[in-house]
Amino acid sequence: MSLSTSKPLAIGIDFGGTSIKSALVHGCEILKHGRLINPQNASAQETLALIEEVIRELCSELPSLVPVGIGLPGLVDSTHGIVHGLSNVDGWDEIPVQRLLQERLGVSVILENDANAMAYGEWQHGAAVHSRNVICVTLGTGVGGALILDGKLFRGAQLAAGEIGHASIDYRGKPGPYGSTGGLEEYVGNSQITERAEDAYRAAGLPAPVTPCTPEVLAKAGQSGCPIAANLWEQIGDEIGAALASAVWLLNPDAIVIGGGVAKAGDLIFNPIRRSLKSRTAPVIHEKLRIVPAKLGNDAGAIGCAALALEAHQEA
Amino acid sequence: MSLSTSKPLAIGIDFGGTSIKSALVHGCEILKHGRLINPQNASAQETLALIEEVIRELCSELPSLVPVGIGLPGLVDSTHGIVHGLSNVDGWDEIPVQRLLQERLGVSVILENDANAMAYGEWQHGAAVHSRNVICVTLGTGVGGALILDGKLFRGAQLAAGEIGHASIDYRGKPGPYGSTGGLEEYVGNSQITERAEDAYRAAGLPAPVTPCTPEVLAKAGQSGCPIAANLWEQIGDEIGAALASAVWLLNPDAIVIGGGVAKAGDLIFNPIRRSLKSRTAPVIHEKLRIVPAKLGNDAGAIGCAALALEAHQEA
Repeated sequence: MSLSTSKPLAIGIDFGGTSIKSALVHGCEILKHGRLINPQNASAQETLALIEEVIRELCSELPSLVPVGIGLPGLVDSTHGIVHGLSNVDGWDEIPVQRLLQERLGVSVILENDANAMAYGEWQHGAAVHSRNVICVTLGTGVGGALILDGKLFRGAQLAAGEIGHASIDYRGKPGPYGSTGGLEEYVGNSQITERAEDAYRAAGLPAPVTPCTPEVLAKAGQSGCPIAANLWEQIGDEIGAALASAVWLLNPDAIVIGGGVAKAGDLIFNPIRRSLKSRTAPVIHEKLRIVPAKLGNDAGAIGCAALALEAHQEA
Repeated sequence: MSLSTSKPLAIGIDFGGTSIKSALVHGCEILKHGRLINPQNASAQETLALIEEVIRELCSELPSLVPVGIGLPGLVDSTHGIVHGLSNVDGWDEIPVQRLLQERLGVSVILENDANAMAYGEWQHGAAVHSRNVICVTLGTGVGGALILDGKLFRGAQLAAGEIGHASIDYRGKPGPYGSTGGLEEYVGNSQITERAEDAYRAAGLPAPVTPCTPEVLAKAGQSGCPIAANLWEQIGDEIGAALASAVWLLNPDAIVIGGGVAKAGDLIFNPIRRSLKSRTAPVIHEKLRIVPAKLGNDAGAIGCAALALEAHQEA
C-alpha cells in the first residue's frame, strides 16, 4: 500500500450491534480494514478505547491522523456529537462520543445515524451519484431509510427523518411499534417475509424449500422458477412500491436507492417495485425517476462516514 | 394610504381558475387590492395585458414599479418562469409568463405553483413563522400540499413535490387519478365529505340538515352537537392524521399547517387529527410537533407570492 498525503483520506467506522467495522477510505475505495470490535459486554469507555486503538493502527503508515466519521444505529445527535442511546447495545445513553474521541485523538470526529451514513455513501460514491433528491431504503430485519434533499442529507427537526419503514400502506393494517398501523416493515421485514413464505407453501400443500424460509431461500426459489415464491415477491414488491409511491408524491425525487439483504432478490423484487410505483404515480414524477440497487454493499456505511468526516473537516 | 419607499413592497398575484386576485403587499399586510380579472374565455395574451394593467394601477402612487410574484394552479417551472399548463384554464400551455411580463414591465417577476406560494406565505408571515421544517396541507375540493424543508421551499426534481393528497392511506383503497389507490383526497376532498355525510344521515334514517351536505353544513351540525356529524369528523380526522403520520415518519417536521375550506371545521377536525397523529407516531417525532390552522386565509397566496418576489429580487 502506498499512501500519498495529497489524497483526501478519512476513517469511516460502521458501529453495528455485534461488530464495529472500520476502514481507511479514499473516495469509494477501502484502502485498509481495521480490526473488528465487539461492543457487547463492554462499557462505552472500554469500547471507545478500542476504537481509538483501531484508528491509530489504521493511520500507522500516514504522517498524521485523519478525520473520523462514525455511523451508529440509534438516536444520534450529529449536531452536538452526542449518542442519546443505541438500538442494540446497552450503556450508550447520553455519551458525548465526539468530544471524548476528539480529546483522545486531536483530530476532527463526526457522528451520524447509520442509515444516514449509508445513504450519504451511496449518494457521494455509489448508486445515486449526480442525483439531488434521493430516497434510500434498506430492506433487512427492519426497513430503514434516509433522505438526500436539494443536494443535502436531510435529517428533520429532531434528526429522526427517513423512517419509511413506519410509513403506512394501510391505515387499518398490521400494528407496529409506537401505535403505528400498516407500516411497511410489518409486511416486508426479514421475519415477516419468512413467515409469509412458510404460510404460502403451507397453503399450497407444499413443503418450503428450506426452513426457516428466509428471504435468501425465497429468492433462490423464485430464481429457480417456483411460482409460489415468484408470486410472493410480486406481492412484496407491490407493497414496497405502494409505500414508495406515497413518498414519491410527497418528495418527487430523482432516484430511489434500495439496499439491504432483501434487495439481493434482484429483479424478482425490483421489477414489481418498479411496476407498482409506475402504476400508482403520475408520469411527470415517475418518468425520470431511477429505482436502483445500492452499489456499495456492506461498505456503504464506512464510505459514507468517511465522506461525512471529510465534508465536516473542510467546512471547519 | 401613505407609502414610504423604504418599505420592501411587492405585488402578489393569486391566479385562480375563476378569478385572478392581486394585491400590493408589505410583509403580511395587504395595502391595496387590485381589480379582479377573469381568465376564462380570454387568451393568455389578453389576460397578461390585463395583469400588466392591474400591476401598474397597484403601483400608481409609488415612485416606481415593485417586484411581482404570481402563484398559479398547475405545472409551473419556477426556475425558468414558464407555465407548462394550468389546471382549470385553457390556453396556458408553454407560456413564458416571466419573460413576457418582465419585458412589458421592466421589473422582476417570478412564478410559483399556488400551493407552494401559500405555504411560503404561511411560513414567512403566518402560522409557521420560526419553523424550519413544515408540511402545509390545503383541504378543499382537492387536497394540496407543499413543503418547507431545512428552511427552504422544497420543490422536488420536477418541481412537483408536496402532493400529499395523492399519498395513500390504503394501498388497496379507493382509486384516484394516475392509478393511485387510497389517496387521502379520495376520502376527504369536499365532494367526498359531502357524499359521506349524506350516506351517514341516510344510514341513520335521518335527513341531512341541508342538501348538499357540504363540509360547511357538516361543521355546523357537528358544532351544534349532532353525533352523526361529530362521528364523521372523527373518522375524517383519523384519516388525515394517518396520512400525516406517514409523512411525519418520513420528514420529522416541526410544524404542520392545515388550511382550506374543510379546515374551518376547527376543533371538530383538528382534535381528531392531533389524536390520530399522536397515536401513530413515536414521541420523539410528535412531542414538539405543532399542528396549527393556517393563519392568512385567502390572502396566503398573494402574501406568499409577494414574499417570494422580494426574495428573488434580493438574490438577483
